[in-house]
Amino acid sequence: MHIHLQNTPGDPLFAFSRQMWEEAASRAPDIGAGHHVTIGDTEADLQAALRTAEALVCDAGIIRTHFAEARTRPDAPRLTLLFATNAGLDRLAPFGWLPDGMILMNNRGTHDAKSGEFAIMAVLMLVNRIPEMVTNQRAGQWQKIWGTVLSRHRLTVVGLGTLGGATARNAAGFGMRVTGVRVHPRPHPHCSRVVGTDDLDTVLPETDVLVLACPLTDATRGLMDRRRLSLLPQGAGLVNIARGEVVDQDAVCDMLDDGRLGGAVLDVFTPEPIPAGHRLWTTPNLIISPHTSADDPATYNPHSLDIFLENLRAWRDGQPMPNRFDVARGY
Amino acid sequence: MHIHLQNTPGDPLFAFSRQMWEEAASRAPDIGAGHHVTIGDTEADLQAALRTAEALVCDAGIIRTHFAEARTRPDAPRLTLLFATNAGLDRLAPFGWLPDGMILMNNRGTHDAKSGEFAIMAVLMLVNRIPEMVTNQRAGQWQKIWGTVLSRHRLTVVGLGTLGGATARNAAGFGMRVTGVRVHPRPHPHCSRVVGTDDLDTVLPETDVLVLACPLTDATRGLMDRRRLSLLPQGAGLVNIARGEVVDQDAVCDMLDDGRLGGAVLDVFTPEPIPAGHRLWTTPNLIISPHTSADDPATYNPHSLDIFLENLRAWRDGQPMPNRFDVARGY
Repeated sequence: MHIHLQNTPGDPLFAFSRQMWEEAASRAPDIGAGHHVTIGDTEADLQAALRTAEALVCDAGIIRTHFAEARTRPDAPRLTLLFATNAGLDRLAPFGWLPDGMILMNNRGTHDAKSGEFAIMAVLMLVNRIPEMVTNQRAGQWQKIWGTVLSRHRLTVVGLGTLGGATARNAAGFGMRVTGVRVHPRPHPHCSRVVGTDDLDTVLPETDVLVLACPLTDATRGLMDRRRLSLLPQGAGLVNIARGEVVDQDAVCDMLDDGRLGGAVLDVFTPEPIPAGHRLWTTPNLIISPHTSADDPATYNPHSLDIFLENLRAWRDGQPMPNRFDVARGY
Repeated sequence: MHIHLQNTPGDPLFAFSRQMWEEAASRAPDIGAGHHVTIGDTEADLQAALRTAEALVCDAGIIRTHFAEARTRPDAPRLTLLFATNAGLDRLAPFGWLPDGMILMNNRGTHDAKSGEFAIMAVLMLVNRIPEMVTNQRAGQWQKIWGTVLSRHRLTVVGLGTLGGATARNAAGFGMRVTGVRVHPRPHPHCSRVVGTDDLDTVLPETDVLVLACPLTDATRGLMDRRRLSLLPQGAGLVNIARGEVVDQDAVCDMLDDGRLGGAVLDVFTPEPIPAGHRLWTTPNLIISPHTSADDPATYNPHSLDIFLENLRAWRDGQPMPNRFDVARGY
């Protein structure tokens, strides 16, 4: 099989190398051996490879340019497997561009360890009141502020995929009571209860820290609007590792300004990059992470290739592909 | 037995109440029942109680004023047990003031959960490069910065008492390789190796994140001087939950200024409070916590009373008292 790995220009930290492929192939010799593998960096590399490639592995940005938003269908007569090295593919919606018979995969699973550690760090920061400490530090003010321990706090996680599941696992490890929220409220091993998205309003008043870890879909866009944010208890904390559009960002800033929210650790924004002079830069009790919470450059590509090969094996064997993207539900 | 609990004026968040005592006594009925317990808030309360009290439970500040630095010995003819509600008693040194036959105890153990969570939060913040992100945020600059996962980092913890032990436990839970440093290098369940303080210079070059969690003694004052700080690898992270005097604070600021240290999360300083206009307030890649890392107001007093009663039981039974303070070693 001809497998092509296309790198994104100007992103050397996340570029595939021949050695990465060979190491991944040696970890899964039953499915990794015997392929014709090309690696491209330029537009010409990509065009040449697409004429014979059966599988393409690349960032969603490349898929958007060459497929989703392309005026003409690319010259890729044999392409069947399209693996995006991203978990959230909201940038590619709507999905009418996807030809019949072509299988789109996302990269869910890659972000488990990194995003789970970022999320529990953010929860610890809120419970230890670091955002307030940083705001005092910025003002040059020494003020005694005491945090407490995680086991005294109620965590709600919206979305129980890779990110939310890893968050729940780590939080449960510190003795937190975790409520999960997802479309189909089946039990989760690290949540003491799981409710459907329709019951979100019921659990928000019982939430000390809220972690948003869901995909951006038509159903989650604007999910945490001003009304729902107001259902949180006075002084609650907010973590967003999903997408900026899931929350009413202005409402969050207002509620941090007036102390209604105790603190926030946000990794995603509207828009990105945050423009110079934007109110986010000076909002109190807010920690800004530049949309890097889930990505560990040291392990990202090896994990991605492992997941791609796992899906390639399932496809070869006629089994369900764990990362096949469901265009109807949007994740 | 007459047990007196003396509260510190102006510190209502950490004041003992009758209910706290009764709940602690009911948790340990074999030793908690049948005592004459008084609770004082004023100087007059203390003086009256000391005339008959056999045990005094209070902050080290009160012990300093009335015992260590008192010009005349207090009128406390029956006082035998002196329980300080602090872990570090460096403020009471030298200990010549302690009468023969009076037993001084510290509060080690109380801080386990809270300090362990603060420390792993600080380690996560360094590995996720939060101090740099906060510095960029302060400047209103969006800059992509990627962290990585804990398991790729080597942690060294100086001091393996309550604070350091809890730090090592949590770090090992995330797959970190933990090196412990203490006076007597016997093994520790959560460290992959333990070395003596004399070998500190050997392990510093192999340290990605250094956590200082030792008591302040003559042996640890100035332990992390400029020379030893320079033995850390380029970009290493520093956490100090011990005492400000354990480290050369100016050297830390210099090394954060020039990027030699990647970041620092400090809870203790010289002096405290940090004065207005001090260079610490504007040092880059530094997070300042106002010496509150180990104290959870919600659980502090209950834990302290549990520990006091545990020691009272040992004393009654003629067993070694786990919190008896060793004035020779200073902890």
